Amino acid sequence: MKRYCFGIDIGGTTIKCGLFDVKGTVLEKWEIPTRTENNGSYILPDVADTISDKIRERDLDREEIAGVGLGIPGPVNEEGEVPAAVNLHWGYVHIVSQMERLTGLDVKAGNDANVAALGEMWKGGGAGYHNVVLITLGTGVGGGIIVDGQILTGTHGAGGEIGHIHITDSVEENCNCGNRGCLEQVASATGISYLAKRRLAKDDAPSILRSREITAKEVFDAVKENDAVALEIADEFGKYLGLALANVAGVCDPEIFVIGGGVSKAGPILLDFIKKYYREYAFLPCKETQFALAELGNDAGIYGAARLVI
Amino acid sequence: MKRYCFGIDIGGTTIKCGLFDVKGTVLEKWEIPTRTENNGSYILPDVADTISDKIRERDLDREEIAGVGLGIPGPVNEEGEVPAAVNLHWGYVHIVSQMERLTGLDVKAGNDANVAALGEMWKGGGAGYHNVVLITLGTGVGGGIIVDGQILTGTHGAGGEIGHIHITDSVEENCNCGNRGCLEQVASATGISYLAKRRLAKDDAPSILRSREITAKEVFDAVKENDAVALEIADEFGKYLGLALANVAGVCDPEIFVIGGGVSKAGPILLDFIKKYYREYAFLPCKETQFALAELGNDAGIYGAARLVI
Repeated sequence: MKRYCFGIDIGGTTIKCGLFDVKGTVLEKWEIPTRTENNGSYILPDVADTISDKIRERDLDREEIAGVGLGIPGPVNEEGEVPAAVNLHWGYVHIVSQMERLTGLDVKAGNDANVAALGEMWKGGGAGYHNVVLITLGTGVGGGIIVDGQILTGTHGAGGEIGHIHITDSVEENCNCGNRGCLEQVASATGISYLAKRRLAKDDAPSILRSREITAKEVFDAVKENDAVALEIADEFGKYLGLALANVAGVCDPEIFVIGGGVSKAGPILLDFIKKYYREYAFLPCKETQFALAELGNDAGIYGAARLVI
Repeated sequence: MKRYCFGIDIGGTTIKCGLFDVKGTVLEKWEIPTRTENNGSYILPDVADTISDKIRERDLDREEIAGVGLGIPGPVNEEGEVPAAVNLHWGYVHIVSQMERLTGLDVKAGNDANVAALGEMWKGGGAGYHNVVLITLGTGVGGGIIVDGQILTGTHGAGGEIGHIHITDSVEENCNCGNRGCLEQVASATGISYLAKRRLAKDDAPSILRSREITAKEVFDAVKENDAVALEIADEFGKYLGLALANVAGVCDPEIFVIGGGVSKAGPILLDFIKKYYREYAFLPCKETQFALAELGNDAGIYGAARLVI
């Protein structure tokens, strides 16, 4: 009988590892550094070694291990291949077959944002739901979409890449993706500070933000202090993200939107700004779709990775 | 062995029926009227009767019939229930169990736009693909999304309802859905004639459209005659639809977009206007996604309905 599995979240600097039972209880968490030297060729052997060490240390029966799930910062196709993962210094890697050879265990792999969405569906803000959209508001805007319990990967691995939905003609700078007016430019942590600077430069309206370093956190702290300019900025952010999510609902109509990433630490007030505009723009049958904050933080990836093999 | 199946597309005025072999060859097509009297209570018995008549007429062995697929102008949930279908004068109908009782055959049902998408994937413009978005440009804008060969129904049956994506702040009238600035208001046949009237009213620029009845067909006929104003109108239409589809790609990343409905009779030139803006706005990995015209016309529904039971 299968009793255990490993959930591994490979990031650009750290590899997060989790040993889980098959019900989804994390038994142990640990990290190892990501060695990107030599075109990232040490990464998979390092992961295999740490799994092997853990099996030995805990004297686990390999027959009882359901497998190893991997979250990767890059696209993973249905055949378990990664065409390229810039942050790992990887070109093409057939990650599933390589890891199966290295570990002798069953392996599944997915894009990290999609895997995190699966984790939040399983044990986080989307628990109990099977149609979930996770939006991660960090340096960028990431997204992962779960339809009937399965990751929506997309043809080019771009399923759920809602950070690059065009949402406004008001931005003159290019996005990292090369387009202009992407959701990421106005709804990520970076995007919120962009909106704040743009608003503050517009006129001399008094604001506590003028004496502070402009970050997404400071903006929402100022919102909580009822700063009028900060409220305007949060409202503009909410309009872009609410509109984008209304349009996402018109495509995949989830049961719940789960909002995670550093910006979500602002708490429930963040959802108020998003929901206000979501409800204005959403198609009637979707207006009451649920919203929740993510709950697993940086562990969403290891939970989702583990879920891949159960 | 299963050799046959029925594909039934229930519309507000006509019920289209098809007898298929399980490879998807249509053996016979026919129609019966939709009797909406008495809260539409005759509709399902009428369908059961026409199936029964056909089985008798052709002396089919019921053991060889895979089942009956139904396309419905309204949402159908995963349990095979229709909460309401306005055009059929229906309130709640458990359509699958009712039809199974009436026919003694296996029954599956889906929303007509989704079922048409399945038909186009199976035997039409999306043949050979498994991740397909069908957009139907008729009186409204309908949509159906196929992911890995399966219809993306959505939590409220609104999966693929891209006609109600908010796409522009430039429209002052309300959409039938109650919102404002929906794709349907500027990209359906009605929407194109709205754009045409708005453009013609803006100034006195000469155009052959000024002497014609303003319809989507006339606009694209004038485009083919190189009428400058018609080109502007088609360009504006292309901008809205191209942008909307770029955003759809950022959610579900299909292999191909298939464009159907009456407006698609304009032919390949229609795709040129859409693709121009799609490629501008789409996220890099999705910029080369394929576009095709639908091929099954009004038969997409019976093909897709048949496909439901195979």
